Amino acid sequence: MADVPDLAFDEQPLLPVVAQDVETGDVVMLAYASEEAVEQTRETGLAHYYSRSREELWKKGGTSGHVQEVEEIRVDCDGDALLYLVEQEGGACHTGYHSCFHRTIDGELRGEKVFDPDDVYE
Amino acid sequence: MADVPDLAFDEQPLLPVVAQDVETGDVVMLAYASEEAVEQTRETGLAHYYSRSREELWKKGGTSGHVQEVEEIRVDCDGDALLYLVEQEGGACHTGYHSCFHRTIDGELRGEKVFDPDDVYE
Repeated sequence: MADVPDLAFDEQPLLPVVAQDVETGDVVMLAYASEEAVEQTRETGLAHYYSRSREELWKKGGTSGHVQEVEEIRVDCDGDALLYLVEQEGGACHTGYHSCFHRTIDGELRGEKVFDPDDVYE
Repeated sequence: MADVPDLAFDEQPLLPVVAQDVETGDVVMLAYASEEAVEQTRETGLAHYYSRSREELWKKGGTSGHVQEVEEIRVDCDGDALLYLVEQEGGACHTGYHSCFHRTIDGELRGEKVFDPDDVYE
């Protein structure tokens, strides 16, 4: 057991969070967490983030039902990035794909659609 | 083939980059890229980032030799985060671990040291 890692919330109000699907190994999204979001994630076992555009705490899947059960939270060596290891319900991406990283930089598609956004977001 | 994704460098000068080891599936680090860092990565096939602390373009492994050969660059749905799929030479973390995410939020260690930092950084 090492020391409990310090999180760098004193240096930046939001830390980037990588969400990785523990079953497939896919990196499914990158979002940001406030200190409150991390606390809510720990308390509920469901991934919470902070929406930079809406400027509010955000429970992933609150609208879509595509929640992320968090098995473990990892902290990087500098304490300024987090990794949520998750079981992803449905798809992580609002476009219907399992992962938000479903395109290469050249525009080739990777992965498959797992739901139809029109059925999920009204 | 989808359209070539727009990258959100007009909204923020640095985009977060997740580096994932294609062999182990491990998320090995999170860093940031400038537009120039992405261009250098594409041109050389080796991961480049932008160091926020040193305020300069940074070739991963330039000092340690622990370079990352980039097999593919992915872009997320909003164009404001990148995923480098890499072959990691040695370890990604300056502490000697394969991954920078080698601690849980409670301080439990995950993964193993793959090199001794004293041998690598003089």
